[in-house]
Amino acid sequence: MAHLTGSVEYALHCLLWLVDAGTPASSRDLAELQGISPSLLAKILPRLEKAGLVESIGGVSGGYRLARPATAISFLDVVDAIEGDKPLFDCQEIRTRCAVFGERAPAWATRGVCGIHAVMLEAEQAMRGALAARSLADVHAAVARKAPAAFEAEVRGWLERRHAARGAGRRRTRGAPDRIP
Amino acid sequence: MAHLTGSVEYALHCLLWLVDAGTPASSRDLAELQGISPSLLAKILPRLEKAGLVESIGGVSGGYRLARPATAISFLDVVDAIEGDKPLFDCQEIRTRCAVFGERAPAWATRGVCGIHAVMLEAEQAMRGALAARSLADVHAAVARKAPAAFEAEVRGWLERRHAARGAGRRRTRGAPDRIP
Repeated sequence: MAHLTGSVEYALHCLLWLVDAGTPASSRDLAELQGISPSLLAKILPRLEKAGLVESIGGVSGGYRLARPATAISFLDVVDAIEGDKPLFDCQEIRTRCAVFGERAPAWATRGVCGIHAVMLEAEQAMRGALAARSLADVHAAVARKAPAAFEAEVRGWLERRHAARGAGRRRTRGAPDRIP
Repeated sequence: MAHLTGSVEYALHCLLWLVDAGTPASSRDLAELQGISPSLLAKILPRLEKAGLVESIGGVSGGYRLARPATAISFLDVVDAIEGDKPLFDCQEIRTRCAVFGERAPAWATRGVCGIHAVMLEAEQAMRGALAARSLADVHAAVARKAPAAFEAEVRGWLERRHAARGAGRRRTRGAPDRIP
């Protein structure tokens, strides 16, 4: 199993599709667009909303859109939104338990950060720095360079048709006579 | 829960004690010296041995010692020995499943590494680089700078007494008359 969960992967892919979505996209539409589990995605999007990365527009034809520009959403923002600022290493202060110390560790032994923890903090900082240095906009631009010119419009069209269908569904429901039991 | 397990922490602390242990230290002695679970440590040391970081000397007065100089054992070596080169991110190639593609993703969509995966690989590389840049010898030297001059000798003495007691225990057993049922 990898350190980062599949939820981080789903979150990042969803956010990438939202960069140029045009209309708000529902959780279900985003799941179907990507062929991923709708129930898992339904748990991920509220976490992105809570972290201020997406906002939801209510109503049948509502959905999610980015809450700020794609240049201002880093990979680190997304990882922290999903993983909750999970540390690389959880120091249990084992250094205090040395049998030679007897009942109580001397002051020198607990001064400053544990040397092992310090290295782990350096490694974590290096990882977080790399994640902070890349934004959704960077990866979106890289995909756009690879994709045919028509691709972005095709995806927009797919999402817009879904969006329109949801609105039409609602209008039909509104105009329909009451159901006779 | 942190990304790296408590086993990595136990492994690093054990290896640090072995830098200047003098005599081979048994798994049980290392656990008692540090106040950590002997049964957990008994699963960790064989993994360090398999990775070539420690070697075991057989017999009652045997135990573990470093298999190479502390300058040549990096934090990355230890993390990989315990976690088995666990990736930061496990790319599921979600990019291939886009509904717009229909049955089969076009060649452009799967060319090269997925853009999201590429950022994760950069972050992983940054983390691994930081872990590779620090050796057991670095942290051992930092601890030695903090500790009183006598500390290292106290720990050696503790381990040597344990080592001698194990040898004496064996000699007693050898010299003892057969047990009468």
